Amino acid sequence: MRKVRIAILGGSGYTAGELLKILLWHPFVDIAVITSRQREPIAELHPFLYGRLEKVCEPFDPDALVAQGVEVAFSCLPHGTSMECIPPLLERGLRVIDLSADYRLKNPAVYEQWYKEPHHDPRNLEHAVYGLPEIYGEQIPSARLIANPGCYPQTAILGLAPLVAERWIDVTNIIIDSKSGVSGGGRTPKLTFHFPECNESVSAYGIGSHRHTPEIEQVLSDLAGQTVTVVFTPHLIPMDRGILSTIYVTPIQAVSHQQLEELYRSYYRNHPFIRLRKQPPATKDTLHSNYLDIFLQPVRGGRVVIVTAEDNLVRGASGVAVQNFNRMFGLAETTALLP
Amino acid sequence: MRKVRIAILGGSGYTAGELLKILLWHPFVDIAVITSRQREPIAELHPFLYGRLEKVCEPFDPDALVAQGVEVAFSCLPHGTSMECIPPLLERGLRVIDLSADYRLKNPAVYEQWYKEPHHDPRNLEHAVYGLPEIYGEQIPSARLIANPGCYPQTAILGLAPLVAERWIDVTNIIIDSKSGVSGGGRTPKLTFHFPECNESVSAYGIGSHRHTPEIEQVLSDLAGQTVTVVFTPHLIPMDRGILSTIYVTPIQAVSHQQLEELYRSYYRNHPFIRLRKQPPATKDTLHSNYLDIFLQPVRGGRVVIVTAEDNLVRGASGVAVQNFNRMFGLAETTALLP
Amino acid sequence: MRKVRIAILGGSGYTAGELLKILLWHPFVDIAVITSRQREPIAELHPFLYGRLEKVCEPFDPDALVAQGVEVAFSCLPHGTSMECIPPLLERGLRVIDLSADYRLKNPAVYEQWYKEPHHDPRNLEHAVYGLPEIYGEQIPSARLIANPGCYPQTAILGLAPLVAERWIDVTNIIIDSKSGVSGGGRTPKLTFHFPECNESVSAYGIGSHRHTPEIEQVLSDLAGQTVTVVFTPHLIPMDRGILSTIYVTPIQAVSHQQLEELYRSYYRNHPFIRLRKQPPATKDTLHSNYLDIFLQPVRGGRVVIVTAEDNLVRGASGVAVQNFNRMFGLAETTALLP
Amino acid sequence: MRKVRIAILGGSGYTAGELLKILLWHPFVDIAVITSRQREPIAELHPFLYGRLEKVCEPFDPDALVAQGVEVAFSCLPHGTSMECIPPLLERGLRVIDLSADYRLKNPAVYEQWYKEPHHDPRNLEHAVYGLPEIYGEQIPSARLIANPGCYPQTAILGLAPLVAERWIDVTNIIIDSKSGVSGGGRTPKLTFHFPECNESVSAYGIGSHRHTPEIEQVLSDLAGQTVTVVFTPHLIPMDRGILSTIYVTPIQAVSHQQLEELYRSYYRNHPFIRLRKQPPATKDTLHSNYLDIFLQPVRGGRVVIVTAEDNLVRGASGVAVQNFNRMFGLAETTALLP
Repeated sequence: MRKVRIAILGGSGYTAGELLKILLWHPFVDIAVITSRQREPIAELHPFLYGRLEKVCEPFDPDALVAQGVEVAFSCLPHGTSMECIPPLLERGLRVIDLSADYRLKNPAVYEQWYKEPHHDPRNLEHAVYGLPEIYGEQIPSARLIANPGCYPQTAILGLAPLVAERWIDVTNIIIDSKSGVSGGGRTPKLTFHFPECNESVSAYGIGSHRHTPEIEQVLSDLAGQTVTVVFTPHLIPMDRGILSTIYVTPIQAVSHQQLEELYRSYYRNHPFIRLRKQPPATKDTLHSNYLDIFLQPVRGGRVVIVTAEDNLVRGASGVAVQNFNRMFGLAETTALLP
Repeated sequence: MRKVRIAILGGSGYTAGELLKILLWHPFVDIAVITSRQREPIAELHPFLYGRLEKVCEPFDPDALVAQGVEVAFSCLPHGTSMECIPPLLERGLRVIDLSADYRLKNPAVYEQWYKEPHHDPRNLEHAVYGLPEIYGEQIPSARLIANPGCYPQTAILGLAPLVAERWIDVTNIIIDSKSGVSGGGRTPKLTFHFPECNESVSAYGIGSHRHTPEIEQVLSDLAGQTVTVVFTPHLIPMDRGILSTIYVTPIQAVSHQQLEELYRSYYRNHPFIRLRKQPPATKDTLHSNYLDIFLQPVRGGRVVIVTAEDNLVRGASGVAVQNFNRMFGLAETTALLP
Repeated sequence: MRKVRIAILGGSGYTAGELLKILLWHPFVDIAVITSRQREPIAELHPFLYGRLEKVCEPFDPDALVAQGVEVAFSCLPHGTSMECIPPLLERGLRVIDLSADYRLKNPAVYEQWYKEPHHDPRNLEHAVYGLPEIYGEQIPSARLIANPGCYPQTAILGLAPLVAERWIDVTNIIIDSKSGVSGGGRTPKLTFHFPECNESVSAYGIGSHRHTPEIEQVLSDLAGQTVTVVFTPHLIPMDRGILSTIYVTPIQAVSHQQLEELYRSYYRNHPFIRLRKQPPATKDTLHSNYLDIFLQPVRGGRVVIVTAEDNLVRGASGVAVQNFNRMFGLAETTALLP
Repeated sequence: MRKVRIAILGGSGYTAGELLKILLWHPFVDIAVITSRQREPIAELHPFLYGRLEKVCEPFDPDALVAQGVEVAFSCLPHGTSMECIPPLLERGLRVIDLSADYRLKNPAVYEQWYKEPHHDPRNLEHAVYGLPEIYGEQIPSARLIANPGCYPQTAILGLAPLVAERWIDVTNIIIDSKSGVSGGGRTPKLTFHFPECNESVSAYGIGSHRHTPEIEQVLSDLAGQTVTVVFTPHLIPMDRGILSTIYVTPIQAVSHQQLEELYRSYYRNHPFIRLRKQPPATKDTLHSNYLDIFLQPVRGGRVVIVTAEDNLVRGASGVAVQNFNRMFGLAETTALLP
């Protein structure tokens, strides 16, 4: 296949850095443009790229992207900014994979409720595809605009999808307790992420109010064909990367360990990045990979505990973005992600 | 007051080291004997004690403790060994604070079920007092044998006690998701706790089967006057110390944030080590202290999320042991623990 | 002794937090005033103080300090600001312990050369005492203004003092390679100290240009009676606290391990915070203490390697400040620092 | 090119895991055999391999390797064991890349002096090639036995080679202060590497006696054409991976920054894994890569400070092993290591 010329918008953050690391290994991608307000060599912003990529960041200019033959833009811009920059690209015929939250929630009113600002681009929201390949894989090849899924939501949705889709559990009694490495908070220095503050410490945040809650509920409700509500609590863990989600559900009828495993094995049988584990996964098992590991454990009182693990920057953001790119262009889904 | 001569059994582990650190500041304690199979200077085993404590560890010998005028023994021995060594001390009139799990579970059959070995000292088990001062404080002054409470159980029990005692919540629907630093696993080298294995990683363990489960249930059932069952999942976090427990409960009737705070404030009004926090605590806020912090948050769907934090080696073990010692001898509960 | 009323200037940073933690245990100190531009309860700025100290930060006002009976001010202000605020306090008769670098370098021209701004208070610089008790202990009781020593310089100076004072080594061939935890960089969020940047990484900085270099050279030259120059390289280590300095020197004549130990033992014989170790110290051995550990090792080629370790916030800043306070008021040097 | 069938001896450790991770991406390698005393699926020993590699570890058997068509063996066995297992492989015509220290020191007497046991295979020692491609690259294609270089020595040798080879510095006055992540200590649990011991701490070890000292001196002496001696001090840093070496040298004549950079640029002009940096490197810049970064800084007093950084498991062990393999088979040196 010929190489596709791509652009990365917002080159200074962690998801952009991770995307570049993956795309350098991609045989069918040509990194044509990187935009950033910091007009510096990309290797100054991400020193690990020193000697590997010579590009200098450019200001964002839709016409310049067209002029340089860019076909696909990966937006690593923050939410709010993404939905300002993406419409002019779509108008010019580019396809977009948006790593921000801007096009994930189908209902603009829900966006406004959780993000505390109105949605500025409801027109494109309508046709945006939620880019979770294991769930909406068939819609991805023809999508013009992919809303790349959130890091936490993937661990919750993929951990619950088979049980919710098959209606084996009480969908009003789901508890998701998630633990994330600090890179999930982005690269802008803040006291919360200052090393001596968050090192040697663990804390909960956004209790009952985290913005990934409606994203999780939207997909699970879609799968269930009824309204699903969840209690979701994220925690900050002193490590660079990784998310572990511990999920507590109550089956409607008694289920055995074997029935659970069969359900999940069948549901994910054609999905190379889902690993059904025999032991509880550590986030380290998934580090720097696009795998999402799932472990199932029936416990006392008829409940089931589900543990899921991923690398929040790869599977949780830039890896799944490449997985989506591969599907958009009819490539093997694992290109540049697995040998 | 005169100084009480004490002994520490099993001097090489983390709880012993922490106990020594606290007791060196205690005006009414004389560290008379430290026992260990490693017959070395204690400052070789715990280098932070270099120049502070000259003692050499001795083999365990009940008569030698009596001969040296020891009145109280703190047992930092592992479970199983503790219940071998403690009976001869009690026979000789010593009082004992046992930091192991051996005397915590009232029912020897429950001990056997969870610890996979029969209990060897059911006679002393009968009169052992579960040393959680905020719950069983009145039984401590006259106790001969204190079963010092577990690290995880304290975060669960103290986070739930007011709601359970007042029967505000459904006691069959309690989920406790706990996160602990690695020192909770002890000082014996194992692959699980080898730095490059557990650093930069988080994982769940003992899902549905952790031995602290019956300890939590025993105390909560006692408070509720009915059988309480919990789902408890511990996690290993890449930090030295600290436990954060995130607890999910379902009130029987709607409760406001204010009602919750008033309940807890009233319940813990005379307890200097319980801090009712206005913000979610980080474990770091409690580091090297005997505080146990509690935060209450009603969330969507009528549920309440409770977050508790402690230092697992101080509040979770050696600090509460000193708090118990203080109560046993009629001292201010905060002696050597707060200025 | 009566209690001395003290003020802390600049209450929001790590050294102020550490100072408060120590002073709460000090039997002869009354924390009267804490100043900060952030006029918040101090327990909001340092959550570990929740429930322990009720004070609200005040704006800096020299007359208000006098009115409140403050006798001693600890300045935790940044350099530059310290020398603006301290003169009006000295004029009003307060004694000052300055934890910044402003009064450490005797020669204002050297200050200007390394700090890139002129010194604003050369008059008080003249009588300021460099507050390293093991070296200038006799000048401290009568001092009006103490320049509290830098964190790195203490590990270098105390590691070298006996050899330099006795002229056993070539004072033009001293290499100091230091490793510091991140709290040494202060509490202001910066990309360098953003968790995912400095975690899982080590790097050198300020190579050949760090501002602590002239401070080290000034004291060593004073001890040697001749100009001493050093090569000093600090490194950032992914941990909260601790400094380890590895120092390479060349003795003029062959010296044995025993001779070295005798020299150091004799030099520091009355200094309770200097521990001469038999094994290479880990910074963890000194954590949360005011100890400075020293280890000596002759190696091949006639060189000697000296390793020193301290807690940069205690011994390196707030602990030694209290040690200075104790000496200023004729108290036991170890008050509030050792049992 | 056809695929080369390879074996990995000693599959349970970190270097074996890293080697497998790299080789899975290698287009011309077929992983035929993995040996280990633990006869388990390799994905049990290295959970990140779950779903990626189905092999079960076999006992070591030279004839079985031949029977399975193995042409090259990578030995990840510990030193001592390596030189027991390698001779029968060489006899059977296999080529060997030994990641242990057994064939690095040319003189068996030096081996015995530092490793405290006699060398058992002096015959093969004679023709073993020290596999540092940037120095001995021309000897690698025809080598039957490669002694893969040590992790610390590479940072020292490559940081010093141009200056030593050109005799710009005093080769009797070289100080190498190295900082390593914990994986450098191997995967066997020991108290030193137990998380709560080495986390939040830094310490020096092997002062003046580390076994990598003669390895560094052997290569530098070879380059200099005269005996080079170094003072080498390794330190343990609380991170998984990475080595930073800070090297202090004294030029014989004054040299400018520009002259230094030109010397190094010229010396390493055809070496894609050496990056001459403009800023001091952090080990993180090299994480999971085969790069070795070098930074040069003249400082006061005519000295030069050299900082080098690498990933100790990739560049320091398994990556350079693959680089050697590529050279042995006439492949592009960067195959499977760079895109």
